[in-house]
Amino acid sequence: MNFSDRLTAVRAEMARFDLAGFLVPRSDEHLGEYVPPSAERLAWLTGFTGSAGLAVVLADRAAVWSDGRYVLQLADQTDGTLWERHHLTESPPPKWVAANTLAGERIGYDPWLMSEDSLARFREAGLSLVALATNPVDAAWDDRPAAPLAPAEPYDETYAGRSSEDKRAQIAAALRAEKQDAAVLSDPASIAWLLNIRGKDVGFTPFALGFALLHADGGVELFMDPAKLPPETRAWLGNKIACAPRSALPKALHALAGKRVRLDNVGSPAWFAETLREAGADIVPGADPCLLPKAMKNASEQSGARAAQARDAVAVCRFLHWLRDAAGHETEMSASAELLRLRAEGALFRGESFPAIAGAGEHGAIMHYRVTPETNREIRTNEVFLIDSGGQYLDGTTDITRTIWTGPGAPPAELCDRFTRVLKGHIAIATLMFPEGVAGVRLDAFARAALWQVGLDFDHGTGHGVGSYLSVHEGPVSISPYLRPASLAEGMILSNEPGFYLPGAYGIRLENLLLVQPAETQGTKKFFRFETLTWAPFDRTLIKTDLLSPSEVAWLDAYHARVLALVGPNVPIDVRDWLNAACAPLETISA
Amino acid sequence: MNFSDRLTAVRAEMARFDLAGFLVPRSDEHLGEYVPPSAERLAWLTGFTGSAGLAVVLADRAAVWSDGRYVLQLADQTDGTLWERHHLTESPPPKWVAANTLAGERIGYDPWLMSEDSLARFREAGLSLVALATNPVDAAWDDRPAAPLAPAEPYDETYAGRSSEDKRAQIAAALRAEKQDAAVLSDPASIAWLLNIRGKDVGFTPFALGFALLHADGGVELFMDPAKLPPETRAWLGNKIACAPRSALPKALHALAGKRVRLDNVGSPAWFAETLREAGADIVPGADPCLLPKAMKNASEQSGARAAQARDAVAVCRFLHWLRDAAGHETEMSASAELLRLRAEGALFRGESFPAIAGAGEHGAIMHYRVTPETNREIRTNEVFLIDSGGQYLDGTTDITRTIWTGPGAPPAELCDRFTRVLKGHIAIATLMFPEGVAGVRLDAFARAALWQVGLDFDHGTGHGVGSYLSVHEGPVSISPYLRPASLAEGMILSNEPGFYLPGAYGIRLENLLLVQPAETQGTKKFFRFETLTWAPFDRTLIKTDLLSPSEVAWLDAYHARVLALVGPNVPIDVRDWLNAACAPLETISA
Repeated sequence: MNFSDRLTAVRAEMARFDLAGFLVPRSDEHLGEYVPPSAERLAWLTGFTGSAGLAVVLADRAAVWSDGRYVLQLADQTDGTLWERHHLTESPPPKWVAANTLAGERIGYDPWLMSEDSLARFREAGLSLVALATNPVDAAWDDRPAAPLAPAEPYDETYAGRSSEDKRAQIAAALRAEKQDAAVLSDPASIAWLLNIRGKDVGFTPFALGFALLHADGGVELFMDPAKLPPETRAWLGNKIACAPRSALPKALHALAGKRVRLDNVGSPAWFAETLREAGADIVPGADPCLLPKAMKNASEQSGARAAQARDAVAVCRFLHWLRDAAGHETEMSASAELLRLRAEGALFRGESFPAIAGAGEHGAIMHYRVTPETNREIRTNEVFLIDSGGQYLDGTTDITRTIWTGPGAPPAELCDRFTRVLKGHIAIATLMFPEGVAGVRLDAFARAALWQVGLDFDHGTGHGVGSYLSVHEGPVSISPYLRPASLAEGMILSNEPGFYLPGAYGIRLENLLLVQPAETQGTKKFFRFETLTWAPFDRTLIKTDLLSPSEVAWLDAYHARVLALVGPNVPIDVRDWLNAACAPLETISA
Repeated sequence: MNFSDRLTAVRAEMARFDLAGFLVPRSDEHLGEYVPPSAERLAWLTGFTGSAGLAVVLADRAAVWSDGRYVLQLADQTDGTLWERHHLTESPPPKWVAANTLAGERIGYDPWLMSEDSLARFREAGLSLVALATNPVDAAWDDRPAAPLAPAEPYDETYAGRSSEDKRAQIAAALRAEKQDAAVLSDPASIAWLLNIRGKDVGFTPFALGFALLHADGGVELFMDPAKLPPETRAWLGNKIACAPRSALPKALHALAGKRVRLDNVGSPAWFAETLREAGADIVPGADPCLLPKAMKNASEQSGARAAQARDAVAVCRFLHWLRDAAGHETEMSASAELLRLRAEGALFRGESFPAIAGAGEHGAIMHYRVTPETNREIRTNEVFLIDSGGQYLDGTTDITRTIWTGPGAPPAELCDRFTRVLKGHIAIATLMFPEGVAGVRLDAFARAALWQVGLDFDHGTGHGVGSYLSVHEGPVSISPYLRPASLAEGMILSNEPGFYLPGAYGIRLENLLLVQPAETQGTKKFFRFETLTWAPFDRTLIKTDLLSPSEVAWLDAYHARVLALVGPNVPIDVRDWLNAACAPLETISA
């Protein structure tokens, strides 16, 4: 079926249910970022493979949305004769649907694929939403892949740092303190963290897809296909974890009649709220109770992160050395493959933490570019090469971006100006100190001020949370323009990745991971600082030194010295020679 | 009646209505900052006179809340044997009431004094709220002053910059675009702006208390005591403004049955929502439609602001010169009086824009200190004197804070360090450039970063909006830690007032007003910069020059040069001589 046929088939299904419209989000039943092939409904229907998006099918029109990261990709991957293409925040879907349908017309949605919160936006626009028992896309999708059944595996306490029993006791006590009887866990990352298990149902994030109910006595009902729970894992889970297939979920929710049940209206599918209401449970809206403790890494997770990052740094530095001679004969794909090959030589490596973004020249301006055989191109001399990649190691998850001038000529002055402003933003975040209780939105602009000063900006957040051998994008905290209330807290790992993009020309992004640490200060209030976790040189050929303040130069020199000390002893001699030069102190005007 | 008797009398009233509790906010029927004496219920009941607070009376306990600005004042002014004292955000009232009452007990509130939004916090805590037709405090308050009846006056278009008709047409068109039939205006500042009238019902803010309904055809029903509308004002309003006493309000709301009525659930008393629901109107939640256009000053208002600020600067500079010889014989009160006297010599001066905060030494650490004959003290040598004050001029509203070392000895090094960090924060805000669409919460931390770097902070926002011959604290935008979504926009006037407070010792605050202006940049996106409006020297004896960067020194020197150029020609020769020295370039190490 081509994309036109697919749209026709979905419209035929819609007509059977008397629907004027149908919402097709990108999410799966866990509302997560990486979804199994069986849940790639948006890609099947529209061709768009980005990690955030929504399509709306009406009888005679259809539209697909994504955000600033994907503007170019959305236009590239979808057929403009079938699909109007829109920006999620600039032209919100509920408004579009309201403008293009009549009052009272039935708009269908799959309650497994959308949260109560996202549905509220459509209801506020005055739309008549109808929950569907079967998904019209699934009915039309004739060769839909089967759901994954990878086995869930124990995650050793050496890495996890705490027993599952201990974690369950903590969360259960939190539920009791709020007089809640149970909490719904629909995020597989929360289940992985809480039960100290990992899996491989989806790419890049090592969790096992499933749902759970955590009771206030610390007991857990785990809803996961029995085929995914081999005897070793069942034994590891112990007798306080009752396992049942997902088909047992409705009955388990009905057993909560009259109970106070905590449910995340943003992170959980609306199906849970609808079923709990039907069951007569008392829904208490509240964030997934695992989110915050999972984000605050314990001492074992912190030292695991440092160790994983040190190994990752060896691979990245070896790769940057290799890249010196790449222009003219290597490609985006071969470079990505080489970096993966080097990472795989490191201990405890289990795979990439996301599909590497390797963008040469103009491809670097596509913020979440993913090279394909069709788009792959040679890395040329005298251009910018951006590579954003990460690894999943048993002891930690990494994520690093470097932007390189391929040479051998000197880079243009304007490019160096932009690169240096991005670097100033990176350093401003890295050197911040801030008190307890500060939400990420209050820090984000420090990454932008040097760009703002000349009227420039970048259209993505500055940083996201990162898991411990889990999701590379982890909540509840981010450093971004969004007004999220969660505050930065001790032990959180966040990325620091300001950028600048000139469409059609190049992209710049400079990313390290940071760990929130307590700071010693003159005051009495609790303060935090960032410990840098990521170690690889920034390309000095792109730095316009006279744009840096003395303290910025000092930061960079100290950072490079630490890269050299940490990585130098662990790389071959030719890499070390290169690293010596790449990490030498900057030559400043006064020197 | 003493405070104990008052509490007993209110409890007796509560018992008559079978109430377990009663909420006494600080607000009047307009939920505004400055209220007439007849609405000072919180002060009458508890003694606390701050501008933000709430009391809760239970049968056998009572508590009073305020925020960080008023911690010391709250403790000073209220009787700890009658009142528990709490911090509004650290120990929220709804939680306290829920913990100290039984489920189902009736908690009374006056629907004229609280918004739906503030009531929601109490309802979410599970409390059973009861709207009261009469206020128990009013019943107990035997010598309650009468409501003010000052005449409303025309506000000339020379100052307003636009006709009321033009403004009404703009807002009415906005209502029609949202398919709204009418909007409730309960904020007298909105009415003053919309109808180009001013008044003097309360201190410091020149508006006339009243309510209005704005209809989608541009017509207005104004509810205001007829005694406040002399013939000249009636004529000025014209025949599209129907005037009626407040007693006509219920009937007017009932006439909106079946209509879509815009209502601000945060800024309007709950009485409106309750009455509109009763009337069968369709309430559309939405911000007061005058808020945003009122905040974006037009060209006449902007030039009015510059002119008013220039006259204010003359008064402030003369005052700072006078202050040089004040230590040892002048007091906080005599200094405030002198500044008022000097302001009153300026053209178009109509009064103070708020009660001056003149804090010598330890009084400066009380963030909203208001000197009284009981607290008044001499300004001593070798201490810090903080003065935060402003004027209402027909062409603009001013607000400025300076912090002075009284000498003649040298100030302690730590004090200079703190002063300079506050100054760095002030300069960081003043020199920001930022794109369209940025909310104030994203800028606030620039005012704090230099303090954060040594583990210090201040417990108030960095800046508030300022009206045009209207409220000195004006919404919808602020530069503060609060997650308010409104973005900074062209023509807005905001204060920039970082501070640092050492309780029991001193307070530092440095405040200028800023005007949001379009910026010319290298990029294509719309950017803004701040135009400084306020002109008076910063006390150089408190500046630790080596903490400033070269660009900070350059900003300060340029600022001082402009103060001298603007103010110098308009002050007596002895003041000019002093100003010459006060505005000379800083001596830096390299000079």
